[in-house]
Amino acid sequence: MSRVALGVDIGGTKIAVGAIDSAGAILARQTIGTEVEAGFDAGLARLIRAIDATLAEAGIDAAALAGIGLGCPGPFDETSGRIENSYTLPGWEGNDIVSPLAARYGTRARLVNDADAALLGEALAGAARGARIALMLTIGTGIGGAVLVDGTILRGAAGEHPKIGHLIVDPAGPACYCGGRGCLESLAAGPALARAGAEHGYADAEAVFAAASAGAAPAQAIVARGADAVETGIWSLIHVFLPEVILFGGGIGERHFALYREAAGRALARAVLAPEGAIRVVKAALGNDAGMVGAAALMLDGG
Amino acid sequence: MSRVALGVDIGGTKIAVGAIDSAGAILARQTIGTEVEAGFDAGLARLIRAIDATLAEAGIDAAALAGIGLGCPGPFDETSGRIENSYTLPGWEGNDIVSPLAARYGTRARLVNDADAALLGEALAGAARGARIALMLTIGTGIGGAVLVDGTILRGAAGEHPKIGHLIVDPAGPACYCGGRGCLESLAAGPALARAGAEHGYADAEAVFAAASAGAAPAQAIVARGADAVETGIWSLIHVFLPEVILFGGGIGERHFALYREAAGRALARAVLAPEGAIRVVKAALGNDAGMVGAAALMLDGG
Repeated sequence: MSRVALGVDIGGTKIAVGAIDSAGAILARQTIGTEVEAGFDAGLARLIRAIDATLAEAGIDAAALAGIGLGCPGPFDETSGRIENSYTLPGWEGNDIVSPLAARYGTRARLVNDADAALLGEALAGAARGARIALMLTIGTGIGGAVLVDGTILRGAAGEHPKIGHLIVDPAGPACYCGGRGCLESLAAGPALARAGAEHGYADAEAVFAAASAGAAPAQAIVARGADAVETGIWSLIHVFLPEVILFGGGIGERHFALYREAAGRALARAVLAPEGAIRVVKAALGNDAGMVGAAALMLDGG
Repeated sequence: MSRVALGVDIGGTKIAVGAIDSAGAILARQTIGTEVEAGFDAGLARLIRAIDATLAEAGIDAAALAGIGLGCPGPFDETSGRIENSYTLPGWEGNDIVSPLAARYGTRARLVNDADAALLGEALAGAARGARIALMLTIGTGIGGAVLVDGTILRGAAGEHPKIGHLIVDPAGPACYCGGRGCLESLAAGPALARAGAEHGYADAEAVFAAASAGAAPAQAIVARGADAVETGIWSLIHVFLPEVILFGGGIGERHFALYREAAGRALARAVLAPEGAIRVVKAALGNDAGMVGAAALMLDGG
């Protein structure tokens, strides 16, 4: 019989729980509201009910689990299991979410960065399957990234998740909270497009994209500037990693994948030092399930 | 008894051969001219004599070797052992340097990119010792880089060495042979400084550095522009990798390390997303021996 792990994807709005087998199949699933305003204890109690229901539906005993992986927006303390993100999960910071679950279900539990979890999910059952080295760029409210090399997520000093979205694309660009100027996130994430769009009366980034599709020149210029920033960022990432596959994920990255595939294609076409034909550009395949599947994959992989 | 491997560092001018033990100590060594113009067969014959002399001086039987590692400027075909670099090693391209050595000495032999070998050497016995994730930037005629993660050199698609020196620093910068504009190499390598210096009558990059030290304002401006490019490039590499240690190597990188340490320090001081105090900036410690020691390290490591 195939091994099964629980994957939990903790977002600011929703928490997804799934029982995942070693082929990446979702055997059972539950989605609950995060309801972060009700406090951590209430959230943990609801998460436990969702896990119980998922195990029951899948017909799996907790003792048979390979573990519980919890994908979560950072920062968090991996060793203590403490959530430290007060931006997406206000009021939950300082609470250990790992130990209560490990104790209750008698299994290993572990926090993993949500961007890393998404790429692990894509590697197990999505668009990064079979790649020895894969790069995922997640474009949404921010721009995040993750790199998988030989089955292992690349992690930096102090075990931290690198901040790939903050590589510099244009040193004359806008200041970012990262301390730099003209980083990829400051030029191409949703808020950057929305800010530029507001000057022309567009409500948000999606309104800019819609107006650009309808032929409005100012909106097209804003979209093109964002795509140019992605082209430059992808150029740098191609040369730094030479990934076999580049995945675009995230709300904006997936909805407007054609735009980013074209931008990445322009970079690849000029990159004479990159091995020809060895780098593919694809859309993330698992959508909102990637983090849940990947958090489970981490436990199935012995993580 | 400690294991011993042979490390060979093949450069355009010189070839260094060393018998290296598993602590990185150089038990015996030889240096010969590459004399690439005399042809590959003559070069191989001289290399074999140098290896024989090194083994004899170290009192080591070839049968006891862990292998022969050959650091070499790329490109080369790792599987066939064929050198394909016609720029640094004209006339040697198409020749298999690995099989004759493996056959003659009855041991494993393997080619490794010279920048990767240098970082492996620094990890075994130099400035990257003990680091889980290390980045080396080599500044000279070109700008190369290598990354070591958990003891393994990061390699990209088709097993190729990434081209870290070609990440983009300023999209409005000069065109480079890589196909991009304003990559780090195009702005901060020796030829970039020399080109800018020529407009003010300086003979080469070192003349620019010397004049800058002596207080000449145009030379100082050229040096400052190069250092600014390194600051931006290091900013991006910090965020992409979060390395525990950043090593500067190469002729220019080592001679003018103080300048680059300061530039990297400026980037680190602004990088609020990087874990505080977790990233060190150091000068490569092994100088010209790094490639030779690292090529041997690859074989000692079971590579």
